Amino acid sequence: MTSTAKTSPSHPRYTRDIARWDMETDVAIVGFGGAGGCAAIEAADAGSEVALFELASAGGGSTAMSSAEIYMGGSGGTRVQRACGFEDSTEDMVTYMMMSNGPQADEAKIRNYCENSVEHFNWLCGIGVPFKDSFHQERAIMCLTDDGLLYTGSEKAYPFSEHAKPAPRGHNLYVEGDNGGPLFMKIITENIDKRERINVHYETRALTLITDDDNTVTGLVVRQGKQELNVRARQGVILCAGGFNMNEAMVQKYAPKLLSGNEPIGNPGDTGTGIMMGMSVGGAAINMHEGFISIPYYPPASITGGIVVNDKGQRFINEDVYHARLGQAVLDQPGDRFYFVLTVDQYGDYEKFNFMGASIAGTGESVEELEEELGLRAGTLANTLRIYNEDCAAGADTQYHKAAEWLQPLQPPLVALDITPGRGVFVPYFTLGGLDTLPTGEVLDPQREVIKGLYAAGRTACGIVRRADGYSSGMSVGDASFSGRMAGRQVAATPRH
Amino acid sequence: MTSTAKTSPSHPRYTRDIARWDMETDVAIVGFGGAGGCAAIEAADAGSEVALFELASAGGGSTAMSSAEIYMGGSGGTRVQRACGFEDSTEDMVTYMMMSNGPQADEAKIRNYCENSVEHFNWLCGIGVPFKDSFHQERAIMCLTDDGLLYTGSEKAYPFSEHAKPAPRGHNLYVEGDNGGPLFMKIITENIDKRERINVHYETRALTLITDDDNTVTGLVVRQGKQELNVRARQGVILCAGGFNMNEAMVQKYAPKLLSGNEPIGNPGDTGTGIMMGMSVGGAAINMHEGFISIPYYPPASITGGIVVNDKGQRFINEDVYHARLGQAVLDQPGDRFYFVLTVDQYGDYEKFNFMGASIAGTGESVEELEEELGLRAGTLANTLRIYNEDCAAGADTQYHKAAEWLQPLQPPLVALDITPGRGVFVPYFTLGGLDTLPTGEVLDPQREVIKGLYAAGRTACGIVRRADGYSSGMSVGDASFSGRMAGRQVAATPRH
Repeated sequence: MTSTAKTSPSHPRYTRDIARWDMETDVAIVGFGGAGGCAAIEAADAGSEVALFELASAGGGSTAMSSAEIYMGGSGGTRVQRACGFEDSTEDMVTYMMMSNGPQADEAKIRNYCENSVEHFNWLCGIGVPFKDSFHQERAIMCLTDDGLLYTGSEKAYPFSEHAKPAPRGHNLYVEGDNGGPLFMKIITENIDKRERINVHYETRALTLITDDDNTVTGLVVRQGKQELNVRARQGVILCAGGFNMNEAMVQKYAPKLLSGNEPIGNPGDTGTGIMMGMSVGGAAINMHEGFISIPYYPPASITGGIVVNDKGQRFINEDVYHARLGQAVLDQPGDRFYFVLTVDQYGDYEKFNFMGASIAGTGESVEELEEELGLRAGTLANTLRIYNEDCAAGADTQYHKAAEWLQPLQPPLVALDITPGRGVFVPYFTLGGLDTLPTGEVLDPQREVIKGLYAAGRTACGIVRRADGYSSGMSVGDASFSGRMAGRQVAATPRH
Repeated sequence: MTSTAKTSPSHPRYTRDIARWDMETDVAIVGFGGAGGCAAIEAADAGSEVALFELASAGGGSTAMSSAEIYMGGSGGTRVQRACGFEDSTEDMVTYMMMSNGPQADEAKIRNYCENSVEHFNWLCGIGVPFKDSFHQERAIMCLTDDGLLYTGSEKAYPFSEHAKPAPRGHNLYVEGDNGGPLFMKIITENIDKRERINVHYETRALTLITDDDNTVTGLVVRQGKQELNVRARQGVILCAGGFNMNEAMVQKYAPKLLSGNEPIGNPGDTGTGIMMGMSVGGAAINMHEGFISIPYYPPASITGGIVVNDKGQRFINEDVYHARLGQAVLDQPGDRFYFVLTVDQYGDYEKFNFMGASIAGTGESVEELEEELGLRAGTLANTLRIYNEDCAAGADTQYHKAAEWLQPLQPPLVALDITPGRGVFVPYFTLGGLDTLPTGEVLDPQREVIKGLYAAGRTACGIVRRADGYSSGMSVGDASFSGRMAGRQVAATPRH
């Protein structure tokens, strides 16, 4: 009697069918990215023997491909925040993150994250992650200098700024250029290599979980070369195998709105097998419809002074928000076309970067001419601009509350960029759904009961950030590294079975 | 060795742990609503012995509580459609339903539904469901006359009308008042009662599934009185236990946007246990974030001649769509307030019904006065009305394409109703997520492999309709009755094990 004909992540194997354990360890971790790496370090430091399985021939995961900004703050501020003159309270951080995530917010997880964020910063410093005590002024998606701190979200934008004192929380590694990710994973890997209790198995694919009759996860099946090995995990298995962004069928099924994007972000291993393994033993996958999806319209920062309108010539958002908040707002609007309306000067700045790849939809020596070129009904964009320009002159955006620093009247000649998804503009996306877990990383079933022996972290879990319009850069690597640590600690505190 | 300490829908029991079968049947069906009832009839008529388990002391489910409009058409038209002078093509019906469901559409399921819809009509007539060959002209949410046919969706509205020839497909039972649901279930129950192969067990709660080691569902555990009974199902189990609308924790977790509504629609048994049972054996729950959510603003039909604006005085939708499409559009719009702007005459009509419970937000002898009362910036609503009224005079809504029959200039004095969710207006909702199934009702795992012995129908499955903004009345009972039949037929064709 064997469990299933082929080994699929959707069908667990049963302990009673295991004739022989090919490998035994305290903790088995699937995936050596930011989450898996940090989980391994914490579990080993707490005394557990760890086997870390990685599909690729080197560690890294999506963390290594990212900018590795890390969202941290609260408790008065991290060393970098304080050095740069920013005080940051835990409550402001909690408020901002709770607002950002709306009805999907997991308060226990957010609170735990915010309360322990400075400790996390210190831990990262302790393992050698370098941050420079300097503040990057410019509005940027990723920091190309070696500055240690920048605003990476919508903290200064309406409505958040009305409810939580803004503070920059994006921590950037002390390295020039967009090289934070590789450096972060290099440091994690060095830390792994010097810990004897951690055994890394590269080019090893996790196939399925092994579970007891009482629904305790006891290990997993991996493939090395052509061999299937049954791995016993005396304390538990941590799934850190990323999201499902690279599994198009799964994205189509669970998060079809993301396919309005044109650039899935992540590593090729993000095929959802970690999530499916969790589901196969009764884990609840939640928030599966949500993802980060964005129109990354800055740099240049000056584009923020333009206005975004729909195909009725109406504004619908304050343009000083984080780029994914604008991207989500565009997707939620009715209409077939979306435009960024700029002055010639602003367009000049934009042209130097052209980061988002938007083409010109129309130009006009007058507003009327621009309306005509865009096929807008006469008097629509004109009325929007009239109101906006009056508000700029008065110094307060009465309609969408863009911050005063960005308000300057838009005078012709004007240029309209086509930012309609599907018409050439760069629209990156990745998934934000995953296994429901406690802040400790313990995986939950649909009734929120813990599945013994099973943990998830990073994007395999549904973490602190749950919507594009509430995203801030640094929340992914922040969550991956922090949730990995939480799970590593928790599993190491579990009795061996 | 027993499987779990307590019997939970999230933990299946294993065949090997069953010492004794307390009951044996060919087909076990969970839930005696529209889906379960139709499944039982079909399975029995195909020669299977059926045990039908119902939690309540009588059948009915949410179907009995509904208007029981049934969405049917295609193949040239049902008898009623043809008698009323409407020809309806399968392709138009498929096109409309595919558009309605957007990226979530399940083409195989929609196509099967549309191709067999006239056959379904005939089957319903055959078991005694009466439809009168008469057309109800008036725009209505539910038909209070005994007319057999009415428009129940957005078929005549933009953009659907541009792509699929409109036809009314809402079939209303031949009964006065909103009494279709009770009559429908009375007929189903009479059909059940006269079939000897069907044994109905009322006041019997399904607790959990029983599964083999090779992941074939072999039966289920039910509770009758204080006894737990192990029920063997030689051909399979069909889950027809409704959605999860009455499980607030589950709605919060999976479909938090629905909690913007104030009236969950359905029967108290819609607690998601059917879906959880399916998940517990590896079934994929999909589209869990979606639901029907609506602002049911008509009757009176004349309200359609008003305009809906947000708190910037902007229109954002054609007001002649189905009410849930408007409801969803309101939820997707940024802004804190939403208004229905009416003439005094239109308001007079509205007042007679006041079906949606909206209060007056402002009135104005002039547009300027109304803007002031609503706290709108001067010149915003005025510009919207100027454009709208010009368009009405010209007979074409250039901005949102409301059909010409509804276009009449809105002249002061004007009244604005507050239709902001959370401020008193009636916002009903129900879930539209469930188990992924083939058109046959076979339940699928996340990799779309069939879970042997397990079927789902009605709202426990994710059916033909997947979004509020694509909903038409009649799609729920249509899907429940049709998908129940499909599952009943499929399970009856399965070898006994």
